[in-house]
Amino acid sequence: MFESADLRHHVAKVAYKREETALREGLLDAQFDLAAQRRFSVLILIAGVEGAGKGETVNLLNEWMDPRRIHTRAFFQPTDEERERPDHWRFWRALPPKGEIGVFFGAWHTMPMVRRAMGEISDAEFAQAIGDIRRLETMLCDEGVLLLKYWFHMSKDQQKKRLKALEKNPATRWRVTEHEWTFYRKYEQFVSVSEPFLRETSTGEAPWIVVPGADARFRSLTVGRHLLASLRERLDQKPVKTLPDKTPPLIVPADKVTMLSALDLDQPLGRDDYEKELETWQGRLNALVRDPRFKTLSVVTVFEGNDSAGKGGAIRRITGALDARSYQTVSIAAPTEEERAQPYLWRFWRHLPRRGQIAIFDRSWYGRVLVERVEGFCSEADWMRGYGEINDFEGAMVRHGTVVVKFWLAISKSEQLRRFKQREKVAFKRFKITDEDWRNRDKWGVYETAICDMVDRTSTAAAPWTLVEANNKLFARIKVLKTLCGAIEDAMECQGGKKRRKKG
Amino acid sequence: MFESADLRHHVAKVAYKREETALREGLLDAQFDLAAQRRFSVLILIAGVEGAGKGETVNLLNEWMDPRRIHTRAFFQPTDEERERPDHWRFWRALPPKGEIGVFFGAWHTMPMVRRAMGEISDAEFAQAIGDIRRLETMLCDEGVLLLKYWFHMSKDQQKKRLKALEKNPATRWRVTEHEWTFYRKYEQFVSVSEPFLRETSTGEAPWIVVPGADARFRSLTVGRHLLASLRERLDQKPVKTLPDKTPPLIVPADKVTMLSALDLDQPLGRDDYEKELETWQGRLNALVRDPRFKTLSVVTVFEGNDSAGKGGAIRRITGALDARSYQTVSIAAPTEEERAQPYLWRFWRHLPRRGQIAIFDRSWYGRVLVERVEGFCSEADWMRGYGEINDFEGAMVRHGTVVVKFWLAISKSEQLRRFKQREKVAFKRFKITDEDWRNRDKWGVYETAICDMVDRTSTAAAPWTLVEANNKLFARIKVLKTLCGAIEDAMECQGGKKRRKKG
Repeated sequence: MFESADLRHHVAKVAYKREETALREGLLDAQFDLAAQRRFSVLILIAGVEGAGKGETVNLLNEWMDPRRIHTRAFFQPTDEERERPDHWRFWRALPPKGEIGVFFGAWHTMPMVRRAMGEISDAEFAQAIGDIRRLETMLCDEGVLLLKYWFHMSKDQQKKRLKALEKNPATRWRVTEHEWTFYRKYEQFVSVSEPFLRETSTGEAPWIVVPGADARFRSLTVGRHLLASLRERLDQKPVKTLPDKTPPLIVPADKVTMLSALDLDQPLGRDDYEKELETWQGRLNALVRDPRFKTLSVVTVFEGNDSAGKGGAIRRITGALDARSYQTVSIAAPTEEERAQPYLWRFWRHLPRRGQIAIFDRSWYGRVLVERVEGFCSEADWMRGYGEINDFEGAMVRHGTVVVKFWLAISKSEQLRRFKQREKVAFKRFKITDEDWRNRDKWGVYETAICDMVDRTSTAAAPWTLVEANNKLFARIKVLKTLCGAIEDAMECQGGKKRRKKG
Repeated sequence: MFESADLRHHVAKVAYKREETALREGLLDAQFDLAAQRRFSVLILIAGVEGAGKGETVNLLNEWMDPRRIHTRAFFQPTDEERERPDHWRFWRALPPKGEIGVFFGAWHTMPMVRRAMGEISDAEFAQAIGDIRRLETMLCDEGVLLLKYWFHMSKDQQKKRLKALEKNPATRWRVTEHEWTFYRKYEQFVSVSEPFLRETSTGEAPWIVVPGADARFRSLTVGRHLLASLRERLDQKPVKTLPDKTPPLIVPADKVTMLSALDLDQPLGRDDYEKELETWQGRLNALVRDPRFKTLSVVTVFEGNDSAGKGGAIRRITGALDARSYQTVSIAAPTEEERAQPYLWRFWRHLPRRGQIAIFDRSWYGRVLVERVEGFCSEADWMRGYGEINDFEGAMVRHGTVVVKFWLAISKSEQLRRFKQREKVAFKRFKITDEDWRNRDKWGVYETAICDMVDRTSTAAAPWTLVEANNKLFARIKVLKTLCGAIEDAMECQGGKKRRKKG
């Protein structure tokens, strides 16, 4: 990757000055069009060798363009806020919205490379990290982000000269610490890791661009020109109306036997037994959340289900057992303007709970493969890739120690009709029933297919779906509470197990 | 993945008979259109639990459709022909051409799953294999293959019943061996590996379709319907003319300093010294190839270079040192009709050498990122993904023990002019110079950019590019021979090292 960059590059001052003016105008224009179109966002990753001009380049971009629409973020040690969420949370919260430019110093690629160079992870683990990064970046590109990845390179000699020069100058001496010299001494190790890494994370849509860092003017022109050309190309492109459908269809069972039709939705549970059980399980849940071991966990519960299946009631039976400071309920409706300007999963990442906290999602990221699929709010390609993206998303939560509990509340079509009619009769419940609910009802069969595909494709060992027979609300609520308590207990025991193993 | 498949599915005989006729007609029609259009090929992967009806289904498909255009291949233990090439060679050689259908029993997914279930590879290595598979399948889909992946599933109980029934019947008893019962006993292990595997190798373009295998009629209808719907969808789609360009541009150096311009193309070497050196190095090469250690290696050399740079002459100095039975030269020109009906890399996979053999490619897979890029024979997206695909391709060779040696023969523009004119003068060399050569010459600068991008993006530690200064043909030939001998020696020493380590 570094063959061209290792050459001795140089741009004369006169030539630079001549081009700089035009470049600035072009970049400002492009930035203006980007904001006016609001069709896509630009994410610039800045990485590479210490002392190769990363900081200077970013400062220059901010000088050349309107800095109010450039969001620069450096990722050093994670804050405590960040440490308490899955690794990528801090990148998601910093993503630029459509129409704007984000600049990330040291994003998701830094840790795997450093850890591999230090020998902390094996070749296979490194390959796994590379696979994760490719999936993340593919997703961002699929969501329309223009992802530009600049790697600033210097030969070992050039790096030495540069660090010495910085040290000599009193104004820049502070920039060279033991950290920089450590990287210098491990130069070969880092190159032997970073070179294959760059190659293997270079895809057609997001190739690494290697920027020779030694000559400041050459470096600045290289980045400036490339950024301008990339912006211009995307801005001037006419949106394509119909893309080829490259996804094959999924299947519908040849005999009408589905997971849902196989459920016995009418489960017995009388009011008296319910009251007793409710007290038991709410008490259990309350105790679990106050258990000291809970401080190292977090819980994400997802409620999906037919309209009027009793999601709200079930959620209230959970929150009724909890201290208001320990949970947050998140109702997912049509996305806000801010959310529409971001990749699909952004609106959910932002609500992930800290350790010791519970997030209860009333509808969720499964909208992608349910309502968006059925109503055609997104293309088939979008919801088809959604399954994998959702599994990656939940996988990241689980790896971080989040307990993910997902409920599908199922009622029969006739029970739904009964409830709709009842809701229309009772004045204070009338707000709960809309024309849309009636329309959804007409699509019962299509939704059923989507639900079964969803469970088949996203029920994982670590984040399984629980189907809840909900014609009897009382039964459903108890099943939800029991399942939730069970999942938290399992997680706590696993933790205990880990600790015991370490001790023993 | 198996939630829906674990349900008890059943289709009655009458319903089946009624649908079967229509299905057969539909499938035959689709197959006919597929052959008439010749726009894409269909690759069906058949996998899953033993006894779940994989073989029956494939036989049925051959019965329903025209078997002359279905190419069924079962991959058991590799043959010796296959073992002597990189793992995936046997899959490439069996790929169906455009217009036809290939059926693979147990393709690239089998080994990683079995080895993980047997505990032979770690979680990280399994993840790495999954990443490799995703890349391979993405490439096939990008090349226009309709990839349909059917997983035949059965519960453990169903499997037991099925195996017992087969054993009881004298006509099918032979099908149940210890092998099948071993898999039965390890059922849980296989499910715990295959379920996440299916999920993680399900992409939007190539999702696994889980087929419940217990009921023969249900199973047959499921596959038949899905295959028909998938074929029909793709066949009826109008080809899209312009796709959105989602690839950012690459860079051109801001100072005209390139790897090529930095070379000193005129290297001294007189005729007398040349003759001596030639004898030395040809002798060395000959001895290396007859070395017993060479039997476990294979060599792939790639010759690329400017027109008239002397590729042919350099190749003849190699072959002159070799026994004709030990090498094959492969001249790459415009693809044949057979080659055009296959994914791009197919035409090169087919020529990979057996162990103990040398393949010399006069031009190669680098055509994708050179002539096809410059002349616009493929889209930008195609050549941009080419770099990664080529690295994967060569990586597979290197992992298999192939020595990959790549030469770029570089001459100056003025030297080329001299040679062109000379060729036009000499009658027996006149065939070597065409109008196309003159046209290519006009694009010197564009080619230079493409060459530098190629070297930057595909020169790996295991398969590096060697730039050969070739204004002096004699020098170039010796450098080529030296480099080739050095690479073979290095590979032999590595091997020796391995053996020594094993002994010690």
